[in-house]
Amino acid sequence: MLQPLQDETYMRLALQMAQSAQGQTGVNPVVGCVLVKDGRVVGMGAHLRRGEGHAEVLALQMAGAEAAGATAYVTLEPCSHYGRTPPCSDRLIQSGVRRVVVASVDPNPLVAGSGIARLKSSGIRVDAGLLAEEANALNEAFNKFIVTRLPFVTMKNASTLDGKIAARTGDSKWITGAPARELVHTMRHRHAAIMVGIGTVLADDPELTTRLAVPALHPLRVVVDSQLRTPLSARVLPGQDGGPTLILTTAGAPASRREALEAHGARVLTCGSGPHVDLPLAMRLLGEMEIPSVLLEGGGRLSGAMLESRLVDKAVLFFAPKWIGGGAQAPDNVSFGGFGRMSEAIRLARMTVQTVGDDVCLTGYPQYAEEEASSCLPE
Amino acid sequence: MLQPLQDETYMRLALQMAQSAQGQTGVNPVVGCVLVKDGRVVGMGAHLRRGEGHAEVLALQMAGAEAAGATAYVTLEPCSHYGRTPPCSDRLIQSGVRRVVVASVDPNPLVAGSGIARLKSSGIRVDAGLLAEEANALNEAFNKFIVTRLPFVTMKNASTLDGKIAARTGDSKWITGAPARELVHTMRHRHAAIMVGIGTVLADDPELTTRLAVPALHPLRVVVDSQLRTPLSARVLPGQDGGPTLILTTAGAPASRREALEAHGARVLTCGSGPHVDLPLAMRLLGEMEIPSVLLEGGGRLSGAMLESRLVDKAVLFFAPKWIGGGAQAPDNVSFGGFGRMSEAIRLARMTVQTVGDDVCLTGYPQYAEEEASSCLPE
Repeated sequence: MLQPLQDETYMRLALQMAQSAQGQTGVNPVVGCVLVKDGRVVGMGAHLRRGEGHAEVLALQMAGAEAAGATAYVTLEPCSHYGRTPPCSDRLIQSGVRRVVVASVDPNPLVAGSGIARLKSSGIRVDAGLLAEEANALNEAFNKFIVTRLPFVTMKNASTLDGKIAARTGDSKWITGAPARELVHTMRHRHAAIMVGIGTVLADDPELTTRLAVPALHPLRVVVDSQLRTPLSARVLPGQDGGPTLILTTAGAPASRREALEAHGARVLTCGSGPHVDLPLAMRLLGEMEIPSVLLEGGGRLSGAMLESRLVDKAVLFFAPKWIGGGAQAPDNVSFGGFGRMSEAIRLARMTVQTVGDDVCLTGYPQYAEEEASSCLPE
Repeated sequence: MLQPLQDETYMRLALQMAQSAQGQTGVNPVVGCVLVKDGRVVGMGAHLRRGEGHAEVLALQMAGAEAAGATAYVTLEPCSHYGRTPPCSDRLIQSGVRRVVVASVDPNPLVAGSGIARLKSSGIRVDAGLLAEEANALNEAFNKFIVTRLPFVTMKNASTLDGKIAARTGDSKWITGAPARELVHTMRHRHAAIMVGIGTVLADDPELTTRLAVPALHPLRVVVDSQLRTPLSARVLPGQDGGPTLILTTAGAPASRREALEAHGARVLTCGSGPHVDLPLAMRLLGEMEIPSVLLEGGGRLSGAMLESRLVDKAVLFFAPKWIGGGAQAPDNVSFGGFGRMSEAIRLARMTVQTVGDDVCLTGYPQYAEEEASSCLPE
């Protein structure tokens, strides 16, 4: 008998468990698993850290002999390959699980349906796709990275109602209220790297830490600095707090600056011959460093260049209920050459709106012109 | 016996009736009235047009002899003075109504509690304040105008996520989607005047009509044009459609231009010696013309100047989910000299958020620094 309501209840629990591990699994996806037998939960697990137990394994360990005949609710298709741990699909088969409900099919080319096929060939009933959208959203960064080896880039900015990220004097404290700023620290915690432009370093001297007492989780700090103008006193350089610091520059930057910054603990990486940092190359290099997600925190020019280069996957835009004025002297939240026709504008698709304290937060996914065109082709 | 739930139900009906007349009562407030006797609605009325029947009178006429002993639900305190019609409080007393429930106390200095006092002195039980906030919001323009004789100014703009109201080329078609543009026409319908700057006339050549087949309701079109650069071919000038056109200028504008524009049917009014139109004076002149409400539709410079002059009472801000770019070449939604410190920004108080089609609409009330300061004083 189908029990859609119960299935959904258990899957939602598995999704919540997976969500709680966001930001702590490195390049691995977050996964949750719930085992249910005869209407009782007999096991629960979530993948908590790369190299440690997978969700299914932890849940099976908890269930012990009770796993035989149970239904497993897994937010992601169980793996079928040997990675750092043996394949979870084999573990489910060995444990005697009778049915497996899967939320999202793994986009990882090493899995991609083979985990489900393996389960089915052992006589296990598999229902896939329950709450798949929610499950995919949990791993949107992983889902891009595993296929493209490029980091998933989330552009975050906070601006006034006139689209400014600072007053004409450069003052930007504070645009949004405390609840929005708190949320930004949570976002930093969930990304492998935080990226800013040299303009932001010079104007605001940010530390780019998560300001949470979890040192192991400080994301990599990335500064895009074509001429290596980052001051040796910049708070973004490695210190007592925070993660390591990577400066992306060009071949045209002075060698003496590179040496000085490296002596202060920064890693300096050349991305192209200049005059600007080759941003697509920069993303490929970050991918090679196994950075699956980047939080782009501005300023306006770097955000504009990233958007224009079609490298932004997601946008989280805070608007504070105020006008600061200042016209061209006050910096825009996103600044780039721009388009001549309004119809050419880069669209933000699937936008959602929420209020955060006194501020408004818009979230969505930039949709670039070619994508729209290709979506018109027959499938 | 108190019947709070029923009271609210009837008052909500009266509010809905009042709301339906928004935009058609001129400088008069919208008012709704419901008469209830022994659990049955016996009369309903709304003030539909200035100089015609008041809500209470129309409801009493419908009820006839049944008004005796009934309860009257009125969204606004019944008037006690002789205006174009006799005082409604007297009519309620004569009809034998036993109880009157009032939403908002009339801010009109000619009424201001005296209507309620008059009812009470005749032995009628009066309960005031039920759903007063909703009732006050319906007449927010009237409530300002009746006290200050200045129009209530609503600033509306539509911009991209980077705060632009056009591309760097000036192209602005379209920023928002059809549902938001439709809503703007409804807003125009509900205002006595629509105001734009000369920059908008030159860039977009707008007609500023409501595009509704109700010619009598076309609002006054107001152009702020310090040097009378409005082209004689401008669609904003009086034509087959639309309301009359008023051009606000300065003493420094060429007399020949004034004559030419007047010959084309526009009224031209001098507001100060220049170089810019004296906006506070302009608002006083509109008030003297019995214009209780103005919809300020841009562009960025006029909106910025109005905001800086603290003349904007309400803001309705549409944000379309797109980025157009263009930096300083693309116009900001609001443009003014601005403040040096973020803490000096003009705040938008009581902000509400709604989605309109694919767009987001933020609505609120600008709060100027002195107001905030004075709110800290002991009362």
